[in-house]
Amino acid sequence: MSDLAERAAKLDAGDPLAGRRDLFDLDDGVIYLDGNSLGALPRHVPARVADVLTRQWGRLCIRSWTEGGWWDAPERIGDRIAPLIGAAPGHVVVGDSTSVNVFRAVVSAVRMNPGRSEILVDATTFPTDGYIAESAARLTGCSIRPVNPQHVPDTLDSHTSVVLLNHVDYRSGRLHDMGVLTAAAHDAGARVIWDLSHSAGALPVDISLHNVDFAVGCTYKYLNGGPGAPAYFAIRPDLLPLLDQPLGGWCSHRDPFAMDAEYVAAEGIAKARAGTPEIVSLLTLDAALDVWDGVDLHQLRAKSLQLTEFFVECVQELAPAATSVTPQGDERGSQVSLSCVDASDVMAQLISRGVVGDHRPPDLLRFGFTPLYTRFVDALRAAEILGEIIA
Amino acid sequence: MSDLAERAAKLDAGDPLAGRRDLFDLDDGVIYLDGNSLGALPRHVPARVADVLTRQWGRLCIRSWTEGGWWDAPERIGDRIAPLIGAAPGHVVVGDSTSVNVFRAVVSAVRMNPGRSEILVDATTFPTDGYIAESAARLTGCSIRPVNPQHVPDTLDSHTSVVLLNHVDYRSGRLHDMGVLTAAAHDAGARVIWDLSHSAGALPVDISLHNVDFAVGCTYKYLNGGPGAPAYFAIRPDLLPLLDQPLGGWCSHRDPFAMDAEYVAAEGIAKARAGTPEIVSLLTLDAALDVWDGVDLHQLRAKSLQLTEFFVECVQELAPAATSVTPQGDERGSQVSLSCVDASDVMAQLISRGVVGDHRPPDLLRFGFTPLYTRFVDALRAAEILGEIIA
Repeated sequence: MSDLAERAAKLDAGDPLAGRRDLFDLDDGVIYLDGNSLGALPRHVPARVADVLTRQWGRLCIRSWTEGGWWDAPERIGDRIAPLIGAAPGHVVVGDSTSVNVFRAVVSAVRMNPGRSEILVDATTFPTDGYIAESAARLTGCSIRPVNPQHVPDTLDSHTSVVLLNHVDYRSGRLHDMGVLTAAAHDAGARVIWDLSHSAGALPVDISLHNVDFAVGCTYKYLNGGPGAPAYFAIRPDLLPLLDQPLGGWCSHRDPFAMDAEYVAAEGIAKARAGTPEIVSLLTLDAALDVWDGVDLHQLRAKSLQLTEFFVECVQELAPAATSVTPQGDERGSQVSLSCVDASDVMAQLISRGVVGDHRPPDLLRFGFTPLYTRFVDALRAAEILGEIIA
Repeated sequence: MSDLAERAAKLDAGDPLAGRRDLFDLDDGVIYLDGNSLGALPRHVPARVADVLTRQWGRLCIRSWTEGGWWDAPERIGDRIAPLIGAAPGHVVVGDSTSVNVFRAVVSAVRMNPGRSEILVDATTFPTDGYIAESAARLTGCSIRPVNPQHVPDTLDSHTSVVLLNHVDYRSGRLHDMGVLTAAAHDAGARVIWDLSHSAGALPVDISLHNVDFAVGCTYKYLNGGPGAPAYFAIRPDLLPLLDQPLGGWCSHRDPFAMDAEYVAAEGIAKARAGTPEIVSLLTLDAALDVWDGVDLHQLRAKSLQLTEFFVECVQELAPAATSVTPQGDERGSQVSLSCVDASDVMAQLISRGVVGDHRPPDLLRFGFTPLYTRFVDALRAAEILGEIIA
């Protein structure tokens, strides 16, 4: 047994989260390092969804809206996500896509800052956030300025209305400093929206500690909510009464079943809802969130950092032609991105050999390390296969 | 056997659609007349969704986005809905809620009519359409004027930008004349958006024949797509190149996986997409649509009218204190709304006796007649029980 293999075995043996892997339906022939794109299936989910279909829809039918808990599922499931992102209870709601929630957040944030007209957008953002911010800017008479997160403090001025940032750079895996950047924005009188798609479920996030104004994020990556699972929207409690969102539909009305022609927003977080939620996807997510019961997020973070550090070390030894572009330690999310020649072809070969990551053009191999189900032995084996391919 | 019972039996025996009822998982102890709120579960759906979860998500995981057909499911399922609404192939896309699609349609329509600033909104609309139209108006600098559909022709003028109409009044069940109202709007230079939520799947709809600009609708009523199933957006082919929608995200980009910072809209109907679609709900709908294979929509309409006429006749005889407010013949959708004293309490009693309709305040009992699974004997029995309750 090589030194790396011995260490992998020892790290797995000492991993306090190792038992969580059994909660997932994983293919033993595959090393799945794409949980940062689509989290794996928790084993218990299909039975729970079958109940949603056959009993809740099939038998109870329309009664499930009230008696079956469908109506307030967006708020209830929001409360399950709240501790994963450090949000206050009653201040997270689930529904719609991340794109739609970015739109909701940007327009709402701009409206809280009348007289200011510039939106700073993370220049390294996952593109949809930038596209949507541009649309929101156009509709609210604002302008957009793309800026790298580390340059935000120097770019903020009295025109800055809103800053839209990703917590983790989806390409490089860099984790940005939520506290420093939020404080800088607030000092300049701007509102901040954080997209937590690549951090929630991978590390402890605390939007309350950092006084974050708005947060959005998807639930199908590290939260394992299923393909295209609905996104969430979170708001700081003191801002909720001021929220004036652009997609208020019947589900965000104070008295939805009065069917009143006049719109009066709900008082609670329901005011961030829009239309009828996609219940089957929503309750798939609800079931999937059970895997988080009892997880210590600091333990999760410790394992994530160990995993990614170990992987980088294995790559340095076994596949030195691939170079990590991901920062270390506190500046790292839970992914490692390697720059290498012919990255698209290399990823295709990796996938054909059962190592599933993804390729981000032009030159990046992306590997997500989901601490709930990825083993150290997986990290080693992935590096070995990568080494064989690029040798 | 009473005369009505004999007629019900005869009508059921001669019903060419009677066999379709077996496709649905219905509770024989319940007369389900709420398919205009939530359509019933097609029997084959749970097995299909189980495959989505266990094989497509569990085994193929991320590969399902490309190999499993997830990526283009919104367009592919749109093409399955197209014949039900008379849309051109390639011009319907499924995703997001009806509310979000109303927003998308109104903003897009306003942008096609620069210099015009008034939006006429069906004053009898399901409220979410009005709320969302108001938000879209605010963001685009327009004003809103609520107007009853029959007064639209007299209200249109050179300021009218967009007319937003419901095909069927959700309260009264009145079916509006799509041809006449669309032509009137076009004569005045306005764009028209039809909300087909209460007509698609209940009667033949032909947006192409009537030259409709935009159509939206939900899929969880007469289309039986499941609770909160995603809505659709349809556009007239000559308008697609001009479409400039407000929620363009990464899924509506011309080259989504290039992850380009610059937004360039797709050329096809994908340009009406936004973020990642809620796949589990979307593929639940996909499976559910199988019940439409081979259905003759004119036969469907004939049965629907017979069913609702027969129900009204039964009510007149057995529960004369309840009065239909639903127009007859060509002016009727597929529901009957009865005005009666203590309507809320009467509906609660009906439901407790297994007759499931719904109550719309203050005085309406609403009964949806889904021609695919409602029998004439159900209509009679519902009227009998109603008669017993209000006697």
